[in-house]
Amino acid sequence: MSFREHLQGLCKNVDGAVGCALMATDGIEVETHLEEEGGQPDLRSLLIEYATLFRGAAEASRTHGAGEVSELSIATDQMLTVARMVSPEYFMVVALRPDGNFGKARYLLRLLAPKLRTEL
Amino acid sequence: MSFREHLQGLCKNVDGAVGCALMATDGIEVETHLEEEGGQPDLRSLLIEYATLFRGAAEASRTHGAGEVSELSIATDQMLTVARMVSPEYFMVVALRPDGNFGKARYLLRLLAPKLRTEL
Repeated sequence: MSFREHLQGLCKNVDGAVGCALMATDGIEVETHLEEEGGQPDLRSLLIEYATLFRGAAEASRTHGAGEVSELSIATDQMLTVARMVSPEYFMVVALRPDGNFGKARYLLRLLAPKLRTEL
Repeated sequence: MSFREHLQGLCKNVDGAVGCALMATDGIEVETHLEEEGGQPDLRSLLIEYATLFRGAAEASRTHGAGEVSELSIATDQMLTVARMVSPEYFMVVALRPDGNFGKARYLLRLLAPKLRTEL
């Protein structure tokens, strides 16, 4: 399966998922799948900004002896996102509507991360 | 009840909680309660760094049309943290051991945030 197929499969299996991406921690996308292009919020830009946060969390945690970051989630009044490390340089992120199935998104990310790691 | 009593009560009622704080989004602590001072990770410094992330998430979300951030959580291999906005300038954060009761921490933060907001 290609990265794109993995991402499409993830979105299809999570109620309320609006997009997901495989990204490098420097914010460069490897592959992105959006259920709808050009919507609001500007998902593509937001995911890139969230990569900066992921990097910041990783640095802060390492510096202060809390180990490696495995997962980061952000809830706003219009969107839920959950991101999971795939390898030290790459992470996956899923964005959902606020009523989306957050638990299922987390669960599937956990299953998918090791599979993608072997393909990177 | 004082802020400190609220924070102590929160830690006491969440299995695995190691500390919690009420902080301004500029990283200045209003009140912090640690179950154990001087441990590893350096919790006090870490929570201050996480305030920067909270602010970054809030700015990114606002800029890209995703609304206001309500919650941010970070999992590392040694610690779970969950933070919740109390008002536009203040947030609460709880840190737990990886085997701590994350769901209960989130739930109690949701209950406590509106109470603290009225006291700020």
